[in-house]
Amino acid sequence: MRSVVDPARLDRMFFALADENRRAMLERLSAGQASVSELADPLHIALPSAVKHLAVLEQGGLVRSQKSGRVRTYQVEPGAFEAMESWVARHKTMLNAQFDALDAYLTGQKGKRA
Amino acid sequence: MRSVVDPARLDRMFFALADENRRAMLERLSAGQASVSELADPLHIALPSAVKHLAVLEQGGLVRSQKSGRVRTYQVEPGAFEAMESWVARHKTMLNAQFDALDAYLTGQKGKRA
Repeated sequence: MRSVVDPARLDRMFFALADENRRAMLERLSAGQASVSELADPLHIALPSAVKHLAVLEQGGLVRSQKSGRVRTYQVEPGAFEAMESWVARHKTMLNAQFDALDAYLTGQKGKRA
Repeated sequence: MRSVVDPARLDRMFFALADENRRAMLERLSAGQASVSELADPLHIALPSAVKHLAVLEQGGLVRSQKSGRVRTYQVEPGAFEAMESWVARHKTMLNAQFDALDAYLTGQKGKRA
């Protein structure tokens, strides 16, 4: 079974999430849009470092940015978590089917012993 | 708001998922336990490469292995996706609250214009 989402996109998305500061930025943006300094300050990281993290989040399709005058504002990409959710849901379905089969097998074994 | 899951654990979990071959292995394991060669063959990757990928998945808390005689068998870690699901669910709640606030604001603006 192939993923419905572009594998390279999933690679970039999961990689973007594999960092505590980037997850904290996403958490902050979940509460509303923010500028680079508003995102950097609470994490006590330098602006250039924040800009790099935001670029990784943007490449991962998790945030988008918009420039208004000299200020660049970031916001969560609408539907950012949908790709991940559908991926997790698909795997859970497979896992549950596996557990059901195991359960049926064990119930069968129990019947044989009785 | 702090995550209930150890940040370093989330780092390792998301990093483990940021690779197509590792995701394919997890997908294969969702259908039932398998040996290294059973996981490597369909992906056309060498055994040492498969072993490395499996170590990353194990460090990410997504799979576990068991050695029986000379054969090491891998299976999905029970509850592997729970940490991710709770993380996604928490962020979706925050995002939805943000959309609701925006919606209320826009409805208010519409009322003013009417």
